[in-house]
Amino acid sequence: MYNKRLLATAVTIGSALAISTPALADDGLGDYRDRFEPLPHLPAIPADNSLTDAKVELGNMLFFEPRISSSGVISCATCHNPALGWTDRIPRATGHDGQIGERNTPTVLNSGFLGSQFWDGREPDLEGQAVGPIEADVEMAMDLDQALERLEGFEVYEQKFAAAFPDDEDPISADNLAHAIASFERTLNTPDSPFDRYLHGDLDALSDQQKDGMVAFVDNGCIACHRGPALTDSQFHRIQVPGSTDVGRFDVTGEESDRHRFRTPTLRNVAVTYPYMNNGATETLEEAVAIMGKEMLGRDFEEQTIADITAFLHSLTGEQPDYEVPALP
Amino acid sequence: MYNKRLLATAVTIGSALAISTPALADDGLGDYRDRFEPLPHLPAIPADNSLTDAKVELGNMLFFEPRISSSGVISCATCHNPALGWTDRIPRATGHDGQIGERNTPTVLNSGFLGSQFWDGREPDLEGQAVGPIEADVEMAMDLDQALERLEGFEVYEQKFAAAFPDDEDPISADNLAHAIASFERTLNTPDSPFDRYLHGDLDALSDQQKDGMVAFVDNGCIACHRGPALTDSQFHRIQVPGSTDVGRFDVTGEESDRHRFRTPTLRNVAVTYPYMNNGATETLEEAVAIMGKEMLGRDFEEQTIADITAFLHSLTGEQPDYEVPALP
Repeated sequence: MYNKRLLATAVTIGSALAISTPALADDGLGDYRDRFEPLPHLPAIPADNSLTDAKVELGNMLFFEPRISSSGVISCATCHNPALGWTDRIPRATGHDGQIGERNTPTVLNSGFLGSQFWDGREPDLEGQAVGPIEADVEMAMDLDQALERLEGFEVYEQKFAAAFPDDEDPISADNLAHAIASFERTLNTPDSPFDRYLHGDLDALSDQQKDGMVAFVDNGCIACHRGPALTDSQFHRIQVPGSTDVGRFDVTGEESDRHRFRTPTLRNVAVTYPYMNNGATETLEEAVAIMGKEMLGRDFEEQTIADITAFLHSLTGEQPDYEVPALP
Repeated sequence: MYNKRLLATAVTIGSALAISTPALADDGLGDYRDRFEPLPHLPAIPADNSLTDAKVELGNMLFFEPRISSSGVISCATCHNPALGWTDRIPRATGHDGQIGERNTPTVLNSGFLGSQFWDGREPDLEGQAVGPIEADVEMAMDLDQALERLEGFEVYEQKFAAAFPDDEDPISADNLAHAIASFERTLNTPDSPFDRYLHGDLDALSDQQKDGMVAFVDNGCIACHRGPALTDSQFHRIQVPGSTDVGRFDVTGEESDRHRFRTPTLRNVAVTYPYMNNGATETLEEAVAIMGKEMLGRDFEEQTIADITAFLHSLTGEQPDYEVPALP
């Protein structure tokens, strides 16, 4: 693409030496780029949960630990599967005894950049989120105390908890389990996507169509809610997607004004975290873009606009994070 | 340990220079070592399924692919979990809708060295084994044709199957799926355990107690069935462990003489593939050794013998194999 533009310019000014003029380094879309933020390598680290190697290592183990579920076979990684974009690629989560939950599993990737957790924002942070699925009847269906007892049965967990929380007399606790898992999750970020490289000045990192999609994304107002480094405002907006009767944040606050409100999902890695919407009923990115245009913006996007925005969204898939499949005790 | 033995010898012969005499390089257990075989890096490769990189890569993807289960969340790696010694560390397998199967999940590690597959040997090889759990109601509960249809929906699988089976017009087939998974599984071997290093001449690779355990293992006759590179004769022996009413190979052959017979399990990595026995009712290696002494050899092992043999069994844990958590489509 860069060569094509270069060639066009060179022809215009009649000299191949134009290569080195600074003006050529720009694609004229600086005003659009300025509306976005590249993804940092790490999100903000809370004051009460410093990010240490010991916590991350322990959190990595716990994330893959199925024995903190009542069946002994479901771990965080079952639904937040690293092979599937750290989600499950089915409409709604399937958990304990094959029960199917109400909502689509959000990816863990970049979740540290969200202002609240879960579709309804019922937890403010990853520390609050981490134990929810362990206890949820339709997910891991496990009593938290029993989970901790199982961990206490392993010497290596005694050591790893003590190393991660050296000031605690009883380091194997629900709080520390949540802090360790949250610490691990804060490392699961995907910087260096084509779009990040583009924002950092590599103007060839996006195709022409992807740039057209970025322009359409801004001009149509998608960016009103999908903004900031994770492309979400972390706010709650009213939406009823096809097939959903879910009341969303109303369940959390009991406020009528929160009925059918959901937190704006991140668009980072959206191409690899299908299906879409709170009920996971939307299979393709093209459908999702069309639905959002209609439901949120009151617009019937043209085919070309849908194709362009979809191409842009593909540029938000970043480098997958480092982690280890641990050797559990 | 080596130094201790060396010192004893040196004192006996009254000279520290004895270090270099060849006799000292031996621990006097050559006759015992000769009864064992180190684990090769690969098992025999069948004539009708050559081992190629393309098949192994595809098999690696399919092994982690949950969409070949009817729930969409259970893959081979769910029960054969690489974080848990490629098994599940629960008594009996838990599969579709939380159903609990009849038997303990065998590890995939070194399974290419087994003369037959499953506890009852109902399949002769990994190719035959691979599709069994996909179709089993209590495991992945999936119609095989439907599994193949799901795979056909992904372009990357079309490419990978075509690359792995270039001579096939319709490469996405049940046979090829089985061949690819079996090829991947044949690479999941654990050579270079302390015991292998010992057999290869590193006489310090085992502790004194582990050597005592090896001697007890041979002298008590464990080696009669647990022999060869995977420490199994791949034969079927009658055993009724505590709590089991499983008729074993009788289910396969209908022969009265096969009632309660099970294939000798491998002892490779036995320390990390607990719990034990066909019903998984035995939690510790010590208990397992005691039960086997009583049931199979008619002996009440002394505490010390149990401890020694257990120590020896710990030396059979090898280097964990290379594989990738794939990025699935």
